[in-house]
Amino acid sequence: MKNMMDYGRGTGEVKNWLVSEATFNTQYQGKCEAVFCLGNGYMGIRSATEESYTGQVRNCFVAGTFNRFDESEVTELPNTADVTAIDIYIDNELFSLEKGRYDQYHRTLNLKTGELERTFNWTNREGKLFRFRFSRFVSMNDLHLIALKVTITPVNCEADIRIISGINGRMTNSGSQHFQEGVRRVFDKRHIQMVQKTIQSDIYFVHHSTHTLECHGEVSSGFEMDRRRVYMIYDLHAGDGGTVTLEKISNVHTSRDRETEQLDPEGLKNHSLSHIRIQSQSGYDELLKDSIRAWARLWSDIDIVIESENGFDQLAIRFAQYHLLVMTPKHDPRFSIGAKGFSGEGYKGHTFWDTEIFVLPFFTFSLPDIARSLLEYRYLSLSGAHEKAKVNGFRGAMYPWESAWLDDGEVTPLWGVADVITGKAMQIRTGVNELHITSDVAFGVWQYYLVTGDEDFMKHHGYEIFFDTAIFWGSRLEYNEQSDTYHINNVIGPDEYKEHINDDAFTNHMAHWCIENAIYYYDQLKEKDAATLNRLNKKLALDHEMKALTGVLNKIYRPQPDQESIIPQNDSYMKKKIIDLSKYKSQQQVASIFKDYNIDQINEIQVTKQASVVMLLYLLEHKFTHEIKRANFHFYESRTLHDSSLSLSSHAVLACDVEQIDLAYKLFRTASEIDLGPNMKSSNEGVHAASLGGIWQIIACGFGGLRMVGGKLRINPTLPRQIKSIMYPIIWKGNPLEVTVSKEGISINNKGDETVEITILDKEYRMKPGRWDSHKTS
Amino acid sequence: MKNMMDYGRGTGEVKNWLVSEATFNTQYQGKCEAVFCLGNGYMGIRSATEESYTGQVRNCFVAGTFNRFDESEVTELPNTADVTAIDIYIDNELFSLEKGRYDQYHRTLNLKTGELERTFNWTNREGKLFRFRFSRFVSMNDLHLIALKVTITPVNCEADIRIISGINGRMTNSGSQHFQEGVRRVFDKRHIQMVQKTIQSDIYFVHHSTHTLECHGEVSSGFEMDRRRVYMIYDLHAGDGGTVTLEKISNVHTSRDRETEQLDPEGLKNHSLSHIRIQSQSGYDELLKDSIRAWARLWSDIDIVIESENGFDQLAIRFAQYHLLVMTPKHDPRFSIGAKGFSGEGYKGHTFWDTEIFVLPFFTFSLPDIARSLLEYRYLSLSGAHEKAKVNGFRGAMYPWESAWLDDGEVTPLWGVADVITGKAMQIRTGVNELHITSDVAFGVWQYYLVTGDEDFMKHHGYEIFFDTAIFWGSRLEYNEQSDTYHINNVIGPDEYKEHINDDAFTNHMAHWCIENAIYYYDQLKEKDAATLNRLNKKLALDHEMKALTGVLNKIYRPQPDQESIIPQNDSYMKKKIIDLSKYKSQQQVASIFKDYNIDQINEIQVTKQASVVMLLYLLEHKFTHEIKRANFHFYESRTLHDSSLSLSSHAVLACDVEQIDLAYKLFRTASEIDLGPNMKSSNEGVHAASLGGIWQIIACGFGGLRMVGGKLRINPTLPRQIKSIMYPIIWKGNPLEVTVSKEGISINNKGDETVEITILDKEYRMKPGRWDSHKTS
Repeated sequence: MKNMMDYGRGTGEVKNWLVSEATFNTQYQGKCEAVFCLGNGYMGIRSATEESYTGQVRNCFVAGTFNRFDESEVTELPNTADVTAIDIYIDNELFSLEKGRYDQYHRTLNLKTGELERTFNWTNREGKLFRFRFSRFVSMNDLHLIALKVTITPVNCEADIRIISGINGRMTNSGSQHFQEGVRRVFDKRHIQMVQKTIQSDIYFVHHSTHTLECHGEVSSGFEMDRRRVYMIYDLHAGDGGTVTLEKISNVHTSRDRETEQLDPEGLKNHSLSHIRIQSQSGYDELLKDSIRAWARLWSDIDIVIESENGFDQLAIRFAQYHLLVMTPKHDPRFSIGAKGFSGEGYKGHTFWDTEIFVLPFFTFSLPDIARSLLEYRYLSLSGAHEKAKVNGFRGAMYPWESAWLDDGEVTPLWGVADVITGKAMQIRTGVNELHITSDVAFGVWQYYLVTGDEDFMKHHGYEIFFDTAIFWGSRLEYNEQSDTYHINNVIGPDEYKEHINDDAFTNHMAHWCIENAIYYYDQLKEKDAATLNRLNKKLALDHEMKALTGVLNKIYRPQPDQESIIPQNDSYMKKKIIDLSKYKSQQQVASIFKDYNIDQINEIQVTKQASVVMLLYLLEHKFTHEIKRANFHFYESRTLHDSSLSLSSHAVLACDVEQIDLAYKLFRTASEIDLGPNMKSSNEGVHAASLGGIWQIIACGFGGLRMVGGKLRINPTLPRQIKSIMYPIIWKGNPLEVTVSKEGISINNKGDETVEITILDKEYRMKPGRWDSHKTS
Repeated sequence: MKNMMDYGRGTGEVKNWLVSEATFNTQYQGKCEAVFCLGNGYMGIRSATEESYTGQVRNCFVAGTFNRFDESEVTELPNTADVTAIDIYIDNELFSLEKGRYDQYHRTLNLKTGELERTFNWTNREGKLFRFRFSRFVSMNDLHLIALKVTITPVNCEADIRIISGINGRMTNSGSQHFQEGVRRVFDKRHIQMVQKTIQSDIYFVHHSTHTLECHGEVSSGFEMDRRRVYMIYDLHAGDGGTVTLEKISNVHTSRDRETEQLDPEGLKNHSLSHIRIQSQSGYDELLKDSIRAWARLWSDIDIVIESENGFDQLAIRFAQYHLLVMTPKHDPRFSIGAKGFSGEGYKGHTFWDTEIFVLPFFTFSLPDIARSLLEYRYLSLSGAHEKAKVNGFRGAMYPWESAWLDDGEVTPLWGVADVITGKAMQIRTGVNELHITSDVAFGVWQYYLVTGDEDFMKHHGYEIFFDTAIFWGSRLEYNEQSDTYHINNVIGPDEYKEHINDDAFTNHMAHWCIENAIYYYDQLKEKDAATLNRLNKKLALDHEMKALTGVLNKIYRPQPDQESIIPQNDSYMKKKIIDLSKYKSQQQVASIFKDYNIDQINEIQVTKQASVVMLLYLLEHKFTHEIKRANFHFYESRTLHDSSLSLSSHAVLACDVEQIDLAYKLFRTASEIDLGPNMKSSNEGVHAASLGGIWQIIACGFGGLRMVGGKLRINPTLPRQIKSIMYPIIWKGNPLEVTVSKEGISINNKGDETVEITILDKEYRMKPGRWDSHKTS
């Protein structure tokens, strides 16, 4: 595949802020539809072009508005009515880049402003030349707002132009229709409205679009509606140089929105209509300015500056942070992050461990309010976790492998793609067997607490999650009388190439940690906060539960390092066959091993899909020696195919820890290229949220050496030779710090009011507000 | 719009059997998708091209499989999984006629064989030349079978070719998804299967596709499935002159099928899998031969031969008959005809008066078994008609204006398109107010009975419909004490430009006829068939009902001719304003009057949408004098805009009756051009069933002079000057006749065993089996 992307555009203020598409090919539309996804956490739109092409996928998702098409499917984020499609007829021919010819084509996403712009010259088949400019944004200032602008300028010619633009409620999720037909209406011959309700969850969606068309000469306009659609039609004649400008201001409100949830459908409609009447008066440029201001406030808190041989490195971290902000519903703790954000239908908008383990650290360390909101989501969905435990015969909080609306519980689909041999669809077992998610949630809470010191959150939500997840593990452990030990059998670990696994290292160690941690905080609360403890004791019978857990804690079997210091990934891994994996390690596309082996055969090979033991050594780093980390990194890195986008970042970070810095940089680049690289199909289903979170972790926690260890801030940087310096902002227990690591040394700018304890390169410092430079100090 | 159709292709055996598209334009895809629709009465597929284009509409409908998306919509024929799409990549570029260039393009429907063929040369952007041929048919021999064939021949070049083809269950009706996701499976790595169930009516659909690919050299193939899809992928390298041939044999079975309705879903799957295993062994060419033989049997019963100045006239009648056979579910009396057949989503597959008044005469006179089946449908749906009467406060059988599954009752949607002034969707009142459908059904029964003499049908179904419909009218009449008359107020007549009408001439006269006819046959049964009468008496309390109806019959108000012999269309029509309608009479597109007037204003003008009084004079021709017909034809023809496709044929037939033969021919041509003419958008929603039935009526009943009057066969031809002769076959009371009318005279070939009484040009004849020629006899 030819790389059609251009990462080098932009100088001065926009240097390393622009991601561009340099040429257009309908076969690779999915790439830029996903990587140019626009959004604001409330909603996101996939960036399908205004004109339509075969194979295009238009998506607009609103966070948390889950609906289940019918009982044979699982709930998912519904693809709501589209406002981005615009049909343009020039001299009675529907405009398309596949007709005639075009040049000077550029489609560019500005990560700083959140605006997507597309410009080109197009010559139609009759030889008439037109200059086109399309731009759009989803407002970061007004969560309900989508704005588009189209300008068409005939050059040395004139033409009849017809523009058809409106609201299209025919959208589906690959055929599954989540909405009733709905009611369409037009106000003042100008504000077009569509009101639809989801068919199962009964959520009302109100969409409006208001158009403003400017050009020389007369315009005839009217509105029409047909099934599931309402739209405006404009007819005009454009002369040489006379630019035609169409602005389309659209909004979306739903009955799930917190600010309008008290309103009845009529009230919601009126609210939304008032909103569009007001906003559409401002016009595109004014609304864009408001949105850019909101983006600027966010960037000022998170912008990382990388001086590197490769400008791409700077762009990659901004790209990751841009998407993390676009996909994260920071406005409402009832929602979390989908594995593909809003950029595609992949994984149905469901939340996985991707949130707590891969994405959360970015927020915990730099936007802690958002991290809290994401963790509150897990607190609010405890009822679903209880239900899952109950259904499976356990107690406590058994978090769903895939999570959607708060009380949905487990929403992992039951069936996947076809088995090549039998022709039957294969069963998906992660929902039942991939248990570690429950520890991952507790881990996210623990890390958040120790980084932020947010006692309020812990009292109201955090401790309960600690205890409730530990109770689950207690009920899940299997006792072996002979050896007087507890085991966890028949699971899937992070390495999903191994099903029906006993004593998975990651699962068992994390479960042990989860119980240990709960007991620790139970004891802490006894000492420090009897009121909270009493409340939770009543709710969860803690005295009884914690006593029982204390009894089993040290009997939980945790795979230990062997003579070569290798922790066996599970109880059978070390006995599996060793084969030459170099062919698959150098693969161009993931999962190439499936071309030679089927899942049963892969199960018998020492091969790992994604970071598993390595992930354990990263998360519970305080529990393992450097020697064990080094040995296991080498052992597992050679056996890991990185066939999941979740894998590379953990290996990259651990590579830094074990002084494999060249490899770390290579893994960072490969991780960055999952979405941003030359593979034009890798993002078809959407961008990779966990990988994007992982990129932040490689930069901050890997190269930047940022860690919370034992409740303390530690900075132990390891810069690859390509990178001269990295500046990253964090907030440590409420205190904002700017950390700069460079070849020369480390400098900290304590921008807060508090003195902060930091361990830098194994030396402890107490840093007062103000600047500190290692090469000046030492 | 440029006419892209070619009606002159084909000589010899295929002369006037071919309808062709001479050039391809994505803006006008709807035209040929609809007019090239393939089918066999069990199912029909809209002829979207194999490769995909923006704006394309793929449809596959199976008769009677109605499903309701949700309670806010009405039930409709669901657009089931597609097997016609085939993606072809040449040198890694998706093939499309919009790329590169093509010549020698022809897409041709052969009306005789039911095969659709498309051939062209295509040069890709790299200058490589390929010869393409696509062909397909829906078998008339095996109702469940769809076959496609693709051949690609590289000319002076070689290329990598990838073909992706399968079953796509993402299809919707303009966004409404009627199917569960379903289960996909592949058997023998070859037979791909999709099993889906409708979400409300619980009808199982089983689709299979089996591919056979032939070419020189190696082919790598595999199958894949993703959401709602299962498909094969073929990769090969094709060299100069080496033709690549793909055959795709597909089938569809449903749990609504009579022959498999006893099977459980597993049984249905097995049945369908066995079917595809067997049929796919035969191959495209063999299966096509079987289908052609079945078509030949049908054509031998119905083929009309027209000698005309214009070959188009011959083509037009064949085109009409082809589509009537494609759309009519002749295999099962539980189904009737949709207003657009299977050729589009328009009117949702619902049955209107189009069936009985416009289409039925063709079947009654030439394929009476099918006519009987269509009327049995109305008998089987009496429960829905009773329910409608009850809901509206009446008794008897009040037939639904729009009819779907047997017990659905009224299924007319409640809301239509937007009012231009208010921006609100407008209410659709026909379901509540357009009452004449009930008389129309009785009329269809009556005509069928008197043409066929089918006493068996009458005993079991026909009489009951007569009585039950009359009882409805009795309950619907409104008594005016002052004048001691009965009225029918607040209706919509056939002229739908007038709502809330009192004493509509068509409605009142037909209601009167309906009651009168019921009383007549009640008396007849008393004399001739006491057993049947007793049974129906018990069921319908006939003695009581008929006595009451006899009492009111002569008091039913029926608008009478005024001094100028004009029958007022309703009680207010004659007082409406007269305006110059010439602008709208010469319109290029229907409903142009709405550009100047809204519905309220049109209501105040002496303007008629479609045949209304004229229709009455045609249906109840025995009740009106020639003078009345003549006067009213002139009066109403000048006031009728023919803004419905149902209008032209009735005016054309009556024009023959009143010696307006040039006008009749002009109306015939205009009617034929509704689907077959140069307007490239008129068939977007599907072909016009009633108009196609009307074309047969113009030829047979208009020019050919065929009528049943007072139970007797009458032939009174009126040939326009362009037409030299017409031969049409009919079956009169079981006896097949070939009628030839020409400038020289009339000849009859009585091919049956019975002597037949015929009135020819007002003289009565008794014709024995054999030939009879008027110019020899007289």
